[in-house]
Amino acid sequence: MPDRGALFPDSEYRIRVENLQAGLRAADMDALLLTGPADIFYVTGFLTRFWESPARPWFVIVPAFTSAIAVIPSIGLDLMSKSWLRDIRTWDAPAPGDDGVSLLADTLRSVIPEDGRLGVPMGAETHVRMPLADFQHVIAQLTPRRVVDATDVVRRVREIKSDGEIERIRATCRVADMAFAQIGDIAGTGVPLDQVFRDFQIALLAAGADWVSYVAGGAGRGGYRDVISPAPTRPLSRGDLLMLDTGAVKGGYFCDFDRNYAIGEAGDDVRRTYDALYAATETVLQDLRPGMTAADAHRMLAGGLEHAGVSPCGGRLGHGLGVTLTEWPSFIPDDETELREGMVLTIEPGAEISPGRIMVHEENIVLRAGGPELLNRRAAAELPVLD
Amino acid sequence: MPDRGALFPDSEYRIRVENLQAGLRAADMDALLLTGPADIFYVTGFLTRFWESPARPWFVIVPAFTSAIAVIPSIGLDLMSKSWLRDIRTWDAPAPGDDGVSLLADTLRSVIPEDGRLGVPMGAETHVRMPLADFQHVIAQLTPRRVVDATDVVRRVREIKSDGEIERIRATCRVADMAFAQIGDIAGTGVPLDQVFRDFQIALLAAGADWVSYVAGGAGRGGYRDVISPAPTRPLSRGDLLMLDTGAVKGGYFCDFDRNYAIGEAGDDVRRTYDALYAATETVLQDLRPGMTAADAHRMLAGGLEHAGVSPCGGRLGHGLGVTLTEWPSFIPDDETELREGMVLTIEPGAEISPGRIMVHEENIVLRAGGPELLNRRAAAELPVLD
Repeated sequence: MPDRGALFPDSEYRIRVENLQAGLRAADMDALLLTGPADIFYVTGFLTRFWESPARPWFVIVPAFTSAIAVIPSIGLDLMSKSWLRDIRTWDAPAPGDDGVSLLADTLRSVIPEDGRLGVPMGAETHVRMPLADFQHVIAQLTPRRVVDATDVVRRVREIKSDGEIERIRATCRVADMAFAQIGDIAGTGVPLDQVFRDFQIALLAAGADWVSYVAGGAGRGGYRDVISPAPTRPLSRGDLLMLDTGAVKGGYFCDFDRNYAIGEAGDDVRRTYDALYAATETVLQDLRPGMTAADAHRMLAGGLEHAGVSPCGGRLGHGLGVTLTEWPSFIPDDETELREGMVLTIEPGAEISPGRIMVHEENIVLRAGGPELLNRRAAAELPVLD
Repeated sequence: MPDRGALFPDSEYRIRVENLQAGLRAADMDALLLTGPADIFYVTGFLTRFWESPARPWFVIVPAFTSAIAVIPSIGLDLMSKSWLRDIRTWDAPAPGDDGVSLLADTLRSVIPEDGRLGVPMGAETHVRMPLADFQHVIAQLTPRRVVDATDVVRRVREIKSDGEIERIRATCRVADMAFAQIGDIAGTGVPLDQVFRDFQIALLAAGADWVSYVAGGAGRGGYRDVISPAPTRPLSRGDLLMLDTGAVKGGYFCDFDRNYAIGEAGDDVRRTYDALYAATETVLQDLRPGMTAADAHRMLAGGLEHAGVSPCGGRLGHGLGVTLTEWPSFIPDDETELREGMVLTIEPGAEISPGRIMVHEENIVLRAGGPELLNRRAAAELPVLD
């Protein structure tokens, strides 16, 4: 039996494509063009870190009524052949002058009638991963067919995770749980923060991550300044608040949660903020339900913090999670997306401890009919202190 | 003194921007719009793994005559403030409805005259990292200004590495050298290939990589089938040829080279192919000179293999390297890019051992006036055998 790697059974992909096709037909689109790693992995199971090279574009077309088609560089033929797709068309990339453009345009013309519409994700949290000039050439060759935004078609399907996907995300969360459990061996007074970041990544790999696409964090006396910086070389010192945030990957699925630690000691303001973040998260873990909106979740979190006398910080207090580190929806006041059963979400309240000093807390859940089910081990109820 | 992290001295960025501005003026463009992590890091030193989240777009504008401007989500203000840029404009993203679009369009209008031209990289090896619909809205708001392809402006500058960049890449190569030196502890008969991939990433981190953006490889009896797959769980067995390829990152700069190992034993065809790849690489290491073209390099490599009675495989036999895993130019028959002093390049000949079984060899060099200077430790002259 061939090694199936990260592949689900074919039936999983068939259902995904049927769901996308139902969305296409409801939106009067004849085909969907996918160009990015997450969407292509979602439809085919094609998983490679080769996306790190910007040299070659990759395409998958989902017609509204017929089978999905891959149009890819020949270097990917062997790997794509392991997927459930039977129609795989290749060219030898890179090919200056016509780098898959004619092959893609020909294929699209063959599946979209002249008065038809091609859907391309072009809205929030998407981008077209191919040279813009080539995209414009493809569009020109499709005339008189029209090109329309298919973001909603994709997100409505991807937002709801199957049981198989939920188990994948849970497995990745377990990896991060195991790595965080090693924190006493990784971080402490005098350890340079870049060494902490390195050793934490090593712990994630040792715990079974296939790779580590995201580690960020911060440390500072009485709170950190931001949450997206790479690690400075400065050693941790007594009184620092340390945060580590991880998007490890296993089987193509991400986790995304963080943990906070006091180095040696913590001031009252830090402890009070931790408690407020923990309590606000707890409220959401108890009370969030399908049918509420992303804005409702934001309101619960921000309201909980304010009730505890703490100022929320950062725009977004949670988001979707799955085949990318962050996905739709966003827990912000303006996102009225209805939360549905099967959504995997992060609950991520942040608060200002003092001017310019913040703390962010994050948990990963799947939303069930009866409320959230945690996918990771819950953070400690009291701020952990490392020596 | 603040931690400068991966930042070069300001003068480094000033020179880069001056070079870009010279290119803009020569091409009659009034400003350059950058949207991707590599270009933005190149101009500002802004280094974060937060790009892994597709939720927020980021912009840097390089006007042809005035200072560069960052237009970014407020979550990045603290980190961008450490850069040399003095003009940083922010909005609270994600913001459905107007996610930086007005702020970007206003800024572009202020630096481009009505009869002027905005350059956007839209050619080979680029993509516009923002929602296409938002990009179209920005363009519409710029009317009557025109939008033109600025790929060449960017690549002509980025292709030539400064001394500082070369030392960064050399340092990353050294990390990979150290990790490959551990291979005897990582791979051998009976070790599952996914464990090899994990332990190799751990070795890279332990050797000082900030993170590991790319590890791929393959293993198979008498050769592997492809070079981009994630690792299967199958244990290595006697007679396998194993290849590990890495793009580790340190200080924001990549290495990209691989190594081949025989597990237990190697057949004559495998050894003969290894020798041919080694010899073809050696010829290029001796004879490549500035003024030759990328196509010349391809011809030298393919010709060397054919001379040894071995069939070249794969389209591209080498490429640029630096702030991304792969960069322009490409060693292919159609790329007539002149190779210039200061280019950092991979020499990457691949050959078919038998039908469907391949071997790929890769070294990283900087091209000097007198020829290539290796940035990594040269592969062993004879195929290493692991027990």
